[in-house]
Amino acid sequence: MTTTVAAYAAPGAKAPLERTTIERRTVGEHDVLIDIHFAGICHSDIHQARAGWGDAIFPMVPGHEIAGIVAAVGSGVSKFQVGDRVGVGCMVDSCGECAPCRNGQEQHCVRGNIPTYNGVGKDGEPTYGGYSKQIVVTESFVVRIPESLPLDVAAPLLCAGITTYSPLKRWGAGPGKKVAVIGLGGLGHMAVKIAHALGAEVTVLSQSLRKKDDGLKLGADHYYATSDRETFEDLAGSFDVILSTVSAPLNFGAYLGLLKTGGALVNVGAPEEPISLNLFSLLGGSKILAGSMIGGIAETQEMLDFCAEHGLGAEIELIEASRINEAYERVDNSDVRYRFVIDTATI
Amino acid sequence: MTTTVAAYAAPGAKAPLERTTIERRTVGEHDVLIDIHFAGICHSDIHQARAGWGDAIFPMVPGHEIAGIVAAVGSGVSKFQVGDRVGVGCMVDSCGECAPCRNGQEQHCVRGNIPTYNGVGKDGEPTYGGYSKQIVVTESFVVRIPESLPLDVAAPLLCAGITTYSPLKRWGAGPGKKVAVIGLGGLGHMAVKIAHALGAEVTVLSQSLRKKDDGLKLGADHYYATSDRETFEDLAGSFDVILSTVSAPLNFGAYLGLLKTGGALVNVGAPEEPISLNLFSLLGGSKILAGSMIGGIAETQEMLDFCAEHGLGAEIELIEASRINEAYERVDNSDVRYRFVIDTATI
Repeated sequence: MTTTVAAYAAPGAKAPLERTTIERRTVGEHDVLIDIHFAGICHSDIHQARAGWGDAIFPMVPGHEIAGIVAAVGSGVSKFQVGDRVGVGCMVDSCGECAPCRNGQEQHCVRGNIPTYNGVGKDGEPTYGGYSKQIVVTESFVVRIPESLPLDVAAPLLCAGITTYSPLKRWGAGPGKKVAVIGLGGLGHMAVKIAHALGAEVTVLSQSLRKKDDGLKLGADHYYATSDRETFEDLAGSFDVILSTVSAPLNFGAYLGLLKTGGALVNVGAPEEPISLNLFSLLGGSKILAGSMIGGIAETQEMLDFCAEHGLGAEIELIEASRINEAYERVDNSDVRYRFVIDTATI
Repeated sequence: MTTTVAAYAAPGAKAPLERTTIERRTVGEHDVLIDIHFAGICHSDIHQARAGWGDAIFPMVPGHEIAGIVAAVGSGVSKFQVGDRVGVGCMVDSCGECAPCRNGQEQHCVRGNIPTYNGVGKDGEPTYGGYSKQIVVTESFVVRIPESLPLDVAAPLLCAGITTYSPLKRWGAGPGKKVAVIGLGGLGHMAVKIAHALGAEVTVLSQSLRKKDDGLKLGADHYYATSDRETFEDLAGSFDVILSTVSAPLNFGAYLGLLKTGGALVNVGAPEEPISLNLFSLLGGSKILAGSMIGGIAETQEMLDFCAEHGLGAEIELIEASRINEAYERVDNSDVRYRFVIDTATI
């Protein structure tokens, strides 16, 4: 007995999103039925709705920054009860048996995690994301949103928050460390907030100084334009960690030059084209170029608790569902400060 | 009062090396005069003697794998006395004041370390390397070769040893860890010995199985040919650390696929051309591509002590100086097992 749920879907790679209905599975023994209240619009929603990474399943209901309230639970659910404030991020299941799954890195499941949308669930059915009124998720992939975090500003934490929190923690952002954040968009603005709350000295490296006032208000100590060549001379050898949140193919060699000896440039952006890299830029200074992909479920909970403790939510522009396509265009033009969140009551 | 010393030098980028004489500086207050007994031939000698990395100074006396006996010391020298068994590696000085220098990472001196050859010393004179009978080096850049290590097999440790020891230690090679070494040449064969002595499970990834027997004797547990496509399927997700010791531009994406989640591919080779890298190969598995360049002086001493404790020297082919040019050709053809060492008595 599936449930019919209103949603916004892309019918194909070149078509705008439109209102439709989807079927959600019956709430199983370990499942949680969530009334979705808010869904963030992540840049990767747009990539995938246009089949930018290939292998897209249509119709596609994007959305992996989901915040809502538990509406029902299966008989075997122990972590949640009806009325709980909860979130769902980029994945809704994994094998649970491989080394990464056992180590709390479900995102790196060797059999592939099951993405919240544009994937296929264990039941063989396509997964549909958060641009909808309800979702059914196994409890182990549901996290708790602390009381002090409003649901609307919490929603983007489920992707933008964990994607930046995980590498900042892993690479040691904290007191005494100089951290640079490349790009002040949806991910970047959360990286600035989180790195600042972790105690690091934070520098924003943005194309222009257009958002400088915002950056400083969000917690940055310094703000530089990367269009200014002097930036790369002035900041040479400055940073312990640089977090790149942009998807454009950067001149990674130039940014590696901004690291201290032994420093790490961590990329969470997803350029569609390969980059060109001179390996000498890693040899000198014994430097590191690392990737990072979201975070595990336990770490996502840790991030939400950290954000609640420090009063960190996303800066959002709340929109009605009918404006999703317009929002996509504005994200394309970097015209959002800093995350669109869909009020799913309007679907 | 300089001293005239016999040496082998490349007169220009396209000329073979020939016997000549050079001037060594007077032994200063903190200097050590070393009678060079042996000098290893490193692949980077050949690169530089041909101006392969640009900015070459001719005539060039290569050689940064130097083992010998102290012949004289300045009045302020406290670490060494005449008769001591000593080594000199890739650098002979640095500023001593910057953060990397103070942290024992003189190789990353922000003002540039002074390379053992093809550089300019603090006296403004070109530096000349180990293909010579004597060298004068400030004591803080001289290391002690333990009694149990013969000088001839110790010489290559000053570059090949430290270049592989440093990243293996930094990236956690040890008991319970699976380490792969790409390439079984001068660097690679030391990497195998050292990783094995550190307690790791060691796999060699070589173009063919030609040197398999050697690899296993050197301490490898497994040996795979990278020309066999199945290698990349069989070993997917296997390694904690992969150390690339080759200078050829590898398909780094394919090798990153052999890492476990969170694993590190560390490159110590120096391809002259930029590589092409799809950043998705770092995102999935949150992987690391790192560079590493030799090691600091204290760490070089630590490496020599470790090698002495474990009875590790290089596998060498001892040659007379008149065969240097022939040896270069054979290194070009990967025809050496595993390091040529010049008997400097023959210069």
